[in-house]
Amino acid sequence: MKILVVGLGLIGGSICKALKKYTYHNVTGCDINHDIEYAALRDVALDNIFDGNLKGFDLIIISLFPEASEKFFADHAAEIGENTLITDVCGIKGKFSERMKKIANENSLRYLGIHPMAGKEFGGYYNSTADLFVKANFIIAPFDDSTEYDVLLLQELAKEIGAGKIVVTTPENHDKMIAYTSQLAHIVSSAYVKSPELGLECGFSGGSFQDMTRIATMNEKMWTDLFMQNREHLQYELDTLIENLKKYSSALKDGDAEKMKALIAEGRELKEENLRHRVGQPN
Amino acid sequence: MKILVVGLGLIGGSICKALKKYTYHNVTGCDINHDIEYAALRDVALDNIFDGNLKGFDLIIISLFPEASEKFFADHAAEIGENTLITDVCGIKGKFSERMKKIANENSLRYLGIHPMAGKEFGGYYNSTADLFVKANFIIAPFDDSTEYDVLLLQELAKEIGAGKIVVTTPENHDKMIAYTSQLAHIVSSAYVKSPELGLECGFSGGSFQDMTRIATMNEKMWTDLFMQNREHLQYELDTLIENLKKYSSALKDGDAEKMKALIAEGRELKEENLRHRVGQPN
Repeated sequence: MKILVVGLGLIGGSICKALKKYTYHNVTGCDINHDIEYAALRDVALDNIFDGNLKGFDLIIISLFPEASEKFFADHAAEIGENTLITDVCGIKGKFSERMKKIANENSLRYLGIHPMAGKEFGGYYNSTADLFVKANFIIAPFDDSTEYDVLLLQELAKEIGAGKIVVTTPENHDKMIAYTSQLAHIVSSAYVKSPELGLECGFSGGSFQDMTRIATMNEKMWTDLFMQNREHLQYELDTLIENLKKYSSALKDGDAEKMKALIAEGRELKEENLRHRVGQPN
Repeated sequence: MKILVVGLGLIGGSICKALKKYTYHNVTGCDINHDIEYAALRDVALDNIFDGNLKGFDLIIISLFPEASEKFFADHAAEIGENTLITDVCGIKGKFSERMKKIANENSLRYLGIHPMAGKEFGGYYNSTADLFVKANFIIAPFDDSTEYDVLLLQELAKEIGAGKIVVTTPENHDKMIAYTSQLAHIVSSAYVKSPELGLECGFSGGSFQDMTRIATMNEKMWTDLFMQNREHLQYELDTLIENLKKYSSALKDGDAEKMKALIAEGRELKEENLRHRVGQPN
């Protein structure tokens, strides 16, 4: 296939590198920063730098932040060839995907979103890597009228770049699940570093502190956009967590060891059950 | 040195394995489960199985849960030789250490506690490993009247088994810091798995979900004991976190993107500053 990747950040750059490492597809890339386009060409992450002609691609993968993805598609949909499938890699689907679909329909184009569940605590092209998607979960979120062919095309692509479990779900269910598995984790991490003890912790921490705070470095522009587009689901998950945390706080306040033991046991059992269902799944 | 390790669980077992792998100390071990003593002897994690004679050791490392550590020491202090330094590896110091010190004083023994900041989400001898402490932080919590010799002896031991940053602090400060870096993380992890979405998450998660929930498998008996002995510090940290999480919830509820962006930026800056101070420190 002839593939165009729009935006060579952590995800776009990693897709290009993975495509060049693991497939024979012809990869064209573009980035607002031309130095990065040249860097990607030198890294053999691309076959070509985009020349401005949007015709002739089998697949366009828009790898920009949500707002920029919509703007790019709206601005350029009319220039895209009719046999091209358009996708995006945003961590939000739901209404965002519906707006993207509307642009596609108005221009007689095929669109459906994907979300590779991979990332790093630091973004940008220079942190991208060909193996970012290896064994990572990969979500495809088609619409009722998406064709089986388009879903299969993206499933094959996911397999080619090494994805682990590939899930096909609705844009709405994607958002509901991602609020819990990813967005809530980012909020917790961000809030966790706001203790007065943070500046004093050097030498006092183990792996669990690192795990809790690793993703607090998230980019505020992108994540605000993601959170705000998924407000309802995310607030539900966050308030559920706060309510659960309050139970532990009460047990501490009351000095109720039996209550605390029951709360911890409940969590342990839930996590063990969760692990049993994930056998062979690294993520 | 002749070293006795009491309790061959994850930490005790790993100490034995590390001592045998990295040092020439003579290692004796005992466990309530005799099968594990024999397993440790077969694994060359021990030189000898404990024969009941507590005389003649240079160092006794009590590697039991807090309550059992106190009981062991109280029950056997009178049998311990006078040239023996006694330590424990509990994740609590403060008043626990004071009680241990009292037993030591009453029996003219030397005691001071340590806390190797290493662990795994699954405990027990069969998860122990010689490299558990490699590059891990290691806390030594002496009293005002502890001798420099005893602190140095434990610092050397920590270095020998591969510890990273070795911190000497008061038992009280240990508890304050550990409430934040370790105990709070365990509560968050335990509460995180209590969303109705947990059972549905398979295929929808990335590394951040795993990071958040890894330690939810903690043993409720040990951690209840640790939490309850550090109630005040832990409740302060937990309530601080809950208050901070509520700010994100308000921003979501109000649809206040600027507020959300500021909250995320604040967390990012704090974490970046924290990382700068940890250069070369894996934990």
